[in-house]
Amino acid sequence: MSLQAAIAVIGTGAWGTTLAVLLARAGQVVTLCARTDAQAQKLHRDRENRLRLPNVPFPETLAVSADWERNVPPAEIVLLVVPAQRMRENVSRLRALASRKALIVSAAKGLEVDSLLRMSQVIGQELPELPKEQIVVLSGPNLAREINQGKPAATVVASPDLNAAALVQQILMMSQFRVYTSTDQIGVELGGALKNVIALAAGMADGLQVGDNAKAALITRGLAEMVRLGAAMGARPITFAGLAGLGDLVATCASPLSRNHFVGEQLGRGRKLEEILDNMPHIAEGVWTTRAASTLADRRGVEMPITREMHRVLFEGGDARRTVMNLMERPPQEEWARLD
Amino acid sequence: MSLQAAIAVIGTGAWGTTLAVLLARAGQVVTLCARTDAQAQKLHRDRENRLRLPNVPFPETLAVSADWERNVPPAEIVLLVVPAQRMRENVSRLRALASRKALIVSAAKGLEVDSLLRMSQVIGQELPELPKEQIVVLSGPNLAREINQGKPAATVVASPDLNAAALVQQILMMSQFRVYTSTDQIGVELGGALKNVIALAAGMADGLQVGDNAKAALITRGLAEMVRLGAAMGARPITFAGLAGLGDLVATCASPLSRNHFVGEQLGRGRKLEEILDNMPHIAEGVWTTRAASTLADRRGVEMPITREMHRVLFEGGDARRTVMNLMERPPQEEWARLD
Repeated sequence: MSLQAAIAVIGTGAWGTTLAVLLARAGQVVTLCARTDAQAQKLHRDRENRLRLPNVPFPETLAVSADWERNVPPAEIVLLVVPAQRMRENVSRLRALASRKALIVSAAKGLEVDSLLRMSQVIGQELPELPKEQIVVLSGPNLAREINQGKPAATVVASPDLNAAALVQQILMMSQFRVYTSTDQIGVELGGALKNVIALAAGMADGLQVGDNAKAALITRGLAEMVRLGAAMGARPITFAGLAGLGDLVATCASPLSRNHFVGEQLGRGRKLEEILDNMPHIAEGVWTTRAASTLADRRGVEMPITREMHRVLFEGGDARRTVMNLMERPPQEEWARLD
Repeated sequence: MSLQAAIAVIGTGAWGTTLAVLLARAGQVVTLCARTDAQAQKLHRDRENRLRLPNVPFPETLAVSADWERNVPPAEIVLLVVPAQRMRENVSRLRALASRKALIVSAAKGLEVDSLLRMSQVIGQELPELPKEQIVVLSGPNLAREINQGKPAATVVASPDLNAAALVQQILMMSQFRVYTSTDQIGVELGGALKNVIALAAGMADGLQVGDNAKAALITRGLAEMVRLGAAMGARPITFAGLAGLGDLVATCASPLSRNHFVGEQLGRGRKLEEILDNMPHIAEGVWTTRAASTLADRRGVEMPITREMHRVLFEGGDARRTVMNLMERPPQEEWARLD
């Protein structure tokens, strides 16, 4: 049985709404926080999120509000489920919380492209009085649509303080949603962010129909470069072999439900980025993360051939087919020789 | 440009035939070795392998023979592409080679179920005078049908002697088939063998339609238990993060072309093992490997929950749906806590 808590979910995308609905159903006291009054009123009137999660009715107990000042402060858990580039502005609205004991949980999978910061760092900057141990991140293979179909999933919550992670685990754990803990917050955050870059490349490989052999090689080498950047940034390599690294990478690269995979697939079919993004409600996180990760790789001197090639395709007019072939034709070396 | 060599390919399954055809096309001197004269004559007459690889014509230079004593000994490379349970009888026919400088390359992905030995160990026992450095293994994400469609793939060749692996690399390398080297022979062999057990489980998850989230969690935890057994048997954990571990695991779990994935999928749909195998020309390697890996896990005291559950489904009448649910409902722990 889960621990009961008051939870505020900030963000009315598919994943935020899913978490809010699931937690309310499980008996938690949940407020889904919209950006504007108009949004909140519409959600409240429809008792579902018609735009982002149609046909999933809200449990009666699920409250909806745009009045964060009134509704968020009593929450013991604030779940931030917003695009990475919007994290800072959302957190800045939570200043009233800074002195409280609330745990702030980020479920965003990306890096802030201007500052190159992880989400926990952005939260820390915007809520400077909040003890760092109260900042928790959540990441894993969690395609929202599947979870709404009642299919099982697992995720990881990470905080430098294992007790904070364990508390969030006890509150979010449901029979269908298995929550693991980790103290490697950097690794869990980078896993969730960087896998989107590899998912773009894997989607591109699918769009070009290069096959499961080549795609598997790409995923394998993608994980290796995620580990390299992660290690340079203070993450533990083993974290990338877990749910928030490999697990999320495999799910995202496999699924037609992933936005990042979709963007890659369209690139592989020869469409241009602007054209693809024109038809999407949100920019796929991987597009921003490719830019941030390329800069980080430069600054830290880390070899990230797939990320580089994705940067060329996304921002430098590189050709998708040529890119995939470049990656396959690199001269093979001794596997892992450099790690020995 | 590749180094030219005389190559004997032992085994006329889809993968052996594919390698023989590819290498002959690339200008190597290749003899495809069948078990019987009748088989060899049919292959020679048809100039293709109608049974196992239809519509792939043999290059004119590809020789076919069942007279191993005459045709195999001049080979500089002997590629063994036979089912794991048939490796010993095949190698015993190669005794005349023991005193020569030929490199013996196993491409079988399995363990000998009676002895629990890896293929390189079986070869070593049957050819006791052959220096161990001349035994090489080849493993990676190499679905034969895709390679025949001209799609790119990568693989790993491993020997305790890096020079032997590098020589095989130079001979087998083609523009479409990228060959990496490794000195962790144990890891490469166990990667190729154990991934089939996880592919059975992943196929079962697909048959039960549990979704990409749960399947990704299963693959992640599958890789973790492969690493645990591998480490206990002397492999380097990092090898399992490479092409012969993760790469092959991802390709096999993704592909409807994999026999092991297919068997799992049928189990997931409620069919019984005997019924599934009745309609297959060969037993999927993973069925034998599940038995061998379970025994090894017992003897070494290694925790392998997925392998155990697959053993229950395959050999103890366990229910597929219950099994997948058991795996998802295990109490989550701190990720990797035991490795710290």
